[in-house]
Amino acid sequence: MPTIAAVAAAAGVSKTTVSHVLSGKRPVSPATRRTVLNVIDELGFQPNSLAQALRSRRTGTVAVLVPDVTNPFYPALARGLQRSLLAQDYLLLLADVGIGDRAVHAFLADAVQRRVDGIVIAALAVTAEDLRTVARARISVVSVGVRLPIDGSDVVSSDDEAVAFDATTYLVNRGHRRIANIGGQPGTPPALGRAKGYRAALEHAGLDLPDGMQVVGDWTRDGGERAMRRILEHATRPTAVFCANDLMAIGAMDAVIAAGLRVPQDVALVGVDDIEAASLVRPALTTMRIPADEIGQVAGSLLLERIGADTAPIGRSIRVSHELVVRDST
Amino acid sequence: MPTIAAVAAAAGVSKTTVSHVLSGKRPVSPATRRTVLNVIDELGFQPNSLAQALRSRRTGTVAVLVPDVTNPFYPALARGLQRSLLAQDYLLLLADVGIGDRAVHAFLADAVQRRVDGIVIAALAVTAEDLRTVARARISVVSVGVRLPIDGSDVVSSDDEAVAFDATTYLVNRGHRRIANIGGQPGTPPALGRAKGYRAALEHAGLDLPDGMQVVGDWTRDGGERAMRRILEHATRPTAVFCANDLMAIGAMDAVIAAGLRVPQDVALVGVDDIEAASLVRPALTTMRIPADEIGQVAGSLLLERIGADTAPIGRSIRVSHELVVRDST
Repeated sequence: MPTIAAVAAAAGVSKTTVSHVLSGKRPVSPATRRTVLNVIDELGFQPNSLAQALRSRRTGTVAVLVPDVTNPFYPALARGLQRSLLAQDYLLLLADVGIGDRAVHAFLADAVQRRVDGIVIAALAVTAEDLRTVARARISVVSVGVRLPIDGSDVVSSDDEAVAFDATTYLVNRGHRRIANIGGQPGTPPALGRAKGYRAALEHAGLDLPDGMQVVGDWTRDGGERAMRRILEHATRPTAVFCANDLMAIGAMDAVIAAGLRVPQDVALVGVDDIEAASLVRPALTTMRIPADEIGQVAGSLLLERIGADTAPIGRSIRVSHELVVRDST
Repeated sequence: MPTIAAVAAAAGVSKTTVSHVLSGKRPVSPATRRTVLNVIDELGFQPNSLAQALRSRRTGTVAVLVPDVTNPFYPALARGLQRSLLAQDYLLLLADVGIGDRAVHAFLADAVQRRVDGIVIAALAVTAEDLRTVARARISVVSVGVRLPIDGSDVVSSDDEAVAFDATTYLVNRGHRRIANIGGQPGTPPALGRAKGYRAALEHAGLDLPDGMQVVGDWTRDGGERAMRRILEHATRPTAVFCANDLMAIGAMDAVIAAGLRVPQDVALVGVDDIEAASLVRPALTTMRIPADEIGQVAGSLLLERIGADTAPIGRSIRVSHELVVRDST
């Protein structure tokens, strides 16, 4: 198999130019590219990605694992992350972990074998064991939404308890006394923090946790619709519901309207995230805005610092602020 | 560096088991996994992904390149694709080509270097030269939305001319005579076909192409809003607008409402895609539904056939059907 040097000699260009043609990471004139590609064709050269990666100790690629690519929060986060990474010429690959019986584990193993330079894990529960192969391969990791079970890792998140506490307290201040909760799927971050914040707000207001009024969904619109139907089966219905994300709140709105009730007159609804759909739905959804794009950008900056560092920095925990956006559903 | 055989011997398991632990593609009992990982730790073993890939001639990974991960059409397509691929145990990696000055070229070069088994290129213009490295690496390719400039490639698409013709003709049949068009960004598939279908429908109905009424957007909500504002600057405004996708139609709706006009009484709007937001926006958007999920599934099936075939199959062109969904914007 010919070497890069052989290709460079035959094409009459420098090895650096051949390398730029192969990586696509630096501009090369179309004529030069054509020449180099023709020579490569003639010589039957196959770039050896691993050898290249080992030489430079960089592959120029970062992977982000998300639980549901069809929840617009995650594409927005990926966009912010990509914006950070482009500044240093990294490519981002997105893995949608949420479908099928594939675990986070398989995607992490794949990322390790492909020798990505960094991994961002968004709102997914991972085990310490899953992370051992990552650490062993010296791949930098930043997590979003939950601290990873390894020492010294970085996490970017909203303060989920405060998000839920503030949203629920807003409903209390609007005069609601019977407030239900549609929570995220148990075991998935940030379901726990948001459920705790809801209960803390009720307690703070001196309200009892109403019987059968804390129901879990699965973060999807359909799951929110099903959870709301269960809540509406109760003899005494709530006057307001705090939903742990916008997709579930939109599903809850579907169920309230299908039951012949009005939002917000009969049941007020608050979501979390402020995805674009929150402002499109009618009545427009009141929500606790979490800046997905900013979270992605911050995660990208932390990751680039780790990738560039000789020794791993001390683990940092960055909290992004949330903000109540009042619309017509309350 | 120890071999897989050395790890297997030290751990007292088969090489196959070690390989399963490393790939994460087959279940291994937690106790065995721990043992194997401990041995790997002690021996300082690093899996050599390229060597493995060359041995098996498969990496178990497929990449999909999309122009805009924040347009919900593409996550839906990716979900359908992932569903197909999971049946044969493939991981899917999603690349968002649309941000920054990264070209399709850089992502393709990266996919080639990583030796993915297949690539799906969705609604992106690629050059024959870009595809040469892909073909040279014997990576299977399926495209969505536009036929690639290589012999024997597979394409899955809607009939874009017919989509636009049918949408515009529907507006004609509703009595509209002055029908504008907000087109996709020139040079990006399927902008051309949808612009042609619009003009063909006007001609078929014996209507002139109204002056200044065919404006191009960039497939985004903001771009649609800007395009609509330009259309509304004309002395004689249209009574209806055919928008080449839903995001631009929603942006056009923003502009119509901001101008103090009503949808559909003053300006009727039709989009294309039927993303979830089309049914959430008020008035709900009439649109020509393109089955993103089905396109993804079909693309996945074609790709798996190509990956599994000894000789590349003859290029196929699969057309998915479109369907008018009438809501309140017309």
